[in-house]
Amino acid sequence: METKNTQIYGLRSVIEAIDSQETLSKVYLQRGLTGASSYELIKKLKKKSIEISYVPVEKLNRLTPKNHQGVVATISPIKFLSISDLSDLIESKPKSISLLILDQLSDVRNFGAIVRTAECTAIDCVVIQSSGSAPVNGDTIKTSSGAIFNVPICKVPHIKDAIFLIKQHDIKIFGASEKAENNIYQTQFGKSQAIIMGSEGKGLSSSVIKLCDELIRIPLLGKIESLNVSVACGTILYEMVRQKHH
Amino acid sequence: METKNTQIYGLRSVIEAIDSQETLSKVYLQRGLTGASSYELIKKLKKKSIEISYVPVEKLNRLTPKNHQGVVATISPIKFLSISDLSDLIESKPKSISLLILDQLSDVRNFGAIVRTAECTAIDCVVIQSSGSAPVNGDTIKTSSGAIFNVPICKVPHIKDAIFLIKQHDIKIFGASEKAENNIYQTQFGKSQAIIMGSEGKGLSSSVIKLCDELIRIPLLGKIESLNVSVACGTILYEMVRQKHH
Repeated sequence: METKNTQIYGLRSVIEAIDSQETLSKVYLQRGLTGASSYELIKKLKKKSIEISYVPVEKLNRLTPKNHQGVVATISPIKFLSISDLSDLIESKPKSISLLILDQLSDVRNFGAIVRTAECTAIDCVVIQSSGSAPVNGDTIKTSSGAIFNVPICKVPHIKDAIFLIKQHDIKIFGASEKAENNIYQTQFGKSQAIIMGSEGKGLSSSVIKLCDELIRIPLLGKIESLNVSVACGTILYEMVRQKHH
Repeated sequence: METKNTQIYGLRSVIEAIDSQETLSKVYLQRGLTGASSYELIKKLKKKSIEISYVPVEKLNRLTPKNHQGVVATISPIKFLSISDLSDLIESKPKSISLLILDQLSDVRNFGAIVRTAECTAIDCVVIQSSGSAPVNGDTIKTSSGAIFNVPICKVPHIKDAIFLIKQHDIKIFGASEKAENNIYQTQFGKSQAIIMGSEGKGLSSSVIKLCDELIRIPLLGKIESLNVSVACGTILYEMVRQKHH
């Protein structure tokens, strides 16, 4: 299993990595850095919604003994789909496609377990938001049991961009919410669908709820008001599998 | 939510806590401790299968400034059922009981998520083994979302003790195993059953597999050979809920 991130450093190297569509998983930038190249780098990072950690120069010196010029980054071994790749993917599967959208899920272990479940339930693509989501790193690879290399992950600046694209293709969007009237056994999954799971603490945001075609909930027979999100996601995806194949 | 463990120290206090059926979640014992009381304590701890951490005296001094006499322990706020309590519980529900047995599941977060799922699926009791299992501590309480206070947990010296007891009551035992012929959609859950989940890395031990009435697997549609254990457990328990109630 390939888990090694490649470390790169130096302003031009990092800018070039961005330009050649490499996936930067972590960018450390020296606090108070000035100069044309550093502004160009920050602009490109912001445009791609890549998170920047501003650190003192000593931290960078610890990361590499080389001439880092105020920036050290790691390239992730995972390639992400862009929104236009997602559009191509949807068009390539007009008859049956199942998508999973994660609305700002922030915990790496939950994310890894969900990607693993997505692989086991033949999800065609997992869509995540660039900012506010769990980072995709060595821990994700490990907790996903390597599934992250088998399931395409699409990273979008905002989750709504993906929802609008999916709506254009007339794919039904289910949102997992405890407020739903219908439970998963009362709903009918189709040949194609997108399922949206909310974040650990807050669930689906109200603006995302409005964009769903149908809300679904998992019946809870006790006093606790929700399941762990990766357990909830597995329960929903497997009910979809059951209805499709069994 | 009550999450505080009570710290106790001193040989007699710890012995008395054991005698009064308190749940010791952690026992630190000074390395090389001798004397009649310390032998008595060790004997009682072993009889109850409570794990002992042998530590240097400095560690104990850091844990408490008090006169610890070579032992510091924490009392868990969770009360566990004994095997005879489990027997009483089974007899009190002759028509319908659902039990979940965890065979040396070692990860606290998985354990917490599973107890939470057990609460949400109306499991009557979760059975764990005293040694080799995830400790029941503040993290378990947190990751179980407090469910650990609502679901009875039965701690047995060996998982087989519980299996034999359940077999005596003619309750069907399902073991989750990737080697099973039938998947969960091809099996029929009844009004009463016990479901056994294996540990994270190894799954069910072969000696436990032999004691199961039926093995069941979750269909895996991708290349990855297993789900995260808490996701797998949720998928199985919810298929049981679906067959029972929907």
